[in-house]
Amino acid sequence: MATAVHIGPYQPPELVAAVEAAGGRVSPFAAAEAVVWLDPVPESLPELPGAVRWVQLPGAGAEQWLERARRGRGVAFTTARGVYALPVAEHALALLLAGIRRLAVSIRAHEWRPVRGETLEGSVVAIVGAGGIGAALTELLLPLRAEVIAVTRSGREVPGAARSLPSSRLGEVWPAADHFVVAAPLTAETRHLVGAPQLAAMKPHSWVVNVGRGGLIDTDALVEALRAERIGGAALDVTDPEPLPDGHPLWSEPRAIVTPHAGPALRVHFLLLGRRVHDNLTRLRAGEPLITPLDVDEGY
Amino acid sequence: MATAVHIGPYQPPELVAAVEAAGGRVSPFAAAEAVVWLDPVPESLPELPGAVRWVQLPGAGAEQWLERARRGRGVAFTTARGVYALPVAEHALALLLAGIRRLAVSIRAHEWRPVRGETLEGSVVAIVGAGGIGAALTELLLPLRAEVIAVTRSGREVPGAARSLPSSRLGEVWPAADHFVVAAPLTAETRHLVGAPQLAAMKPHSWVVNVGRGGLIDTDALVEALRAERIGGAALDVTDPEPLPDGHPLWSEPRAIVTPHAGPALRVHFLLLGRRVHDNLTRLRAGEPLITPLDVDEGY
Repeated sequence: MATAVHIGPYQPPELVAAVEAAGGRVSPFAAAEAVVWLDPVPESLPELPGAVRWVQLPGAGAEQWLERARRGRGVAFTTARGVYALPVAEHALALLLAGIRRLAVSIRAHEWRPVRGETLEGSVVAIVGAGGIGAALTELLLPLRAEVIAVTRSGREVPGAARSLPSSRLGEVWPAADHFVVAAPLTAETRHLVGAPQLAAMKPHSWVVNVGRGGLIDTDALVEALRAERIGGAALDVTDPEPLPDGHPLWSEPRAIVTPHAGPALRVHFLLLGRRVHDNLTRLRAGEPLITPLDVDEGY
Repeated sequence: MATAVHIGPYQPPELVAAVEAAGGRVSPFAAAEAVVWLDPVPESLPELPGAVRWVQLPGAGAEQWLERARRGRGVAFTTARGVYALPVAEHALALLLAGIRRLAVSIRAHEWRPVRGETLEGSVVAIVGAGGIGAALTELLLPLRAEVIAVTRSGREVPGAARSLPSSRLGEVWPAADHFVVAAPLTAETRHLVGAPQLAAMKPHSWVVNVGRGGLIDTDALVEALRAERIGGAALDVTDPEPLPDGHPLWSEPRAIVTPHAGPALRVHFLLLGRRVHDNLTRLRAGEPLITPLDVDEGY
């Protein structure tokens, strides 16, 4: 029998197709055995009917859902971690290249004036929080002949990286790398991992790219470093606060590029998410373990 | 005995070091046996003294030097073709990603507003004029899971490209690819190879990137296509006219990105050119064929 899956709060055709292809049928919320929830704000999700066994969340980040998932012990919550790894890595590369090539200067210009950029060839790029996005980004950086330092909690070896370091050795990385891509999950340990001391340790041409969570960077310290021209610049797809409010100094800072959490916001977004929904619904129906379950103890 | 090499009209330390490392010594113009000339404008180069056997030009493009090289039969002119292949390919990728990710919209924004971009994953990128830059760019596009159509005059197979086509079949490419990177030399045959009919054949989301020569694109036709929103956009590192004059419509076109011939304009520019000067001076002294001689008959 088809599994009753509610898709809400709206129903993109790509997700309806994915549910049906995996042996589900789209159901009203009250009758659902599973829920695919597309609003990233936990308060948007009503109390779950008793028959619900699984909730698929729309994003890779889990921190805001932890409390809700704890209340729902017995219901499996799964995140979309990994779904957007390549598109987000691509966005990180777009931001890094835009930064070092001074595209923000050219794009704001109304006259032909020489601009002298950097190249990634021969440079060292540190990826802080080198999970799925970082692994994909490493593959993109290698043919540009950049050297990658991959930092993970455990320090496990990341394929293609010249060096793989545990987060306990992060202090060595700030003065050693040319540029930084921050892609860690946000936890108590990673909050403000880029703050005033880290920015002060960077090279004057360093760019910092954030595609993880806004809270990984101390925004006030960053604004001060940019104003003082202590680093090359910052390109942020996530901010703290987010959305970045009107009138925030980052909007008018010439060394800052802000994109509105656009890494996974693609024309093919629901097609990518649909593949994961299809895989997880197939597993649910077969009684197999789901992909990327939310771990309420680890916090991601 | 050291070869007398004039470096002009100014003498970057990286080039002085390259000349000396290859067994040359920096000489006044009148006493030179070889000249490294850094000004891209042919009129800037004075009449060559009789002892000059070799002139190293600063850029990859040759078309403006053909007349001058014809007058100097007996003097070998060499271009810098290939020196900037990877940096220019990197710049092309930066422009293409900035285009499809709508970075120009975000960079000009002063408020947080959703932007829905494209991804290269699963897209088809045509490289028109797939020489050294195109070969390097193909390597950069593969891990992004884009499919490359490489167009060269002969149609020779370009490693990594899904399809390699001769320029005689270029007409098939405009409706088939998602995005276009133009990197051909400018000749009578390639002038305006992107004009109104080609723009009309493209998909509505297509981006056109030009890192070759401005004259490869019919600027007026491009401006009209952008105004009418017939294509996704255009990102140009070279323009026609170049420099792009103040007040030109491209400066205020939201779907256009213009960079000031910045592909090879890098902090490490003279380091890269120095490697080529070193190699060619070494060959000159050994009586071996020089790298990338200007071919006055072929026009590049």
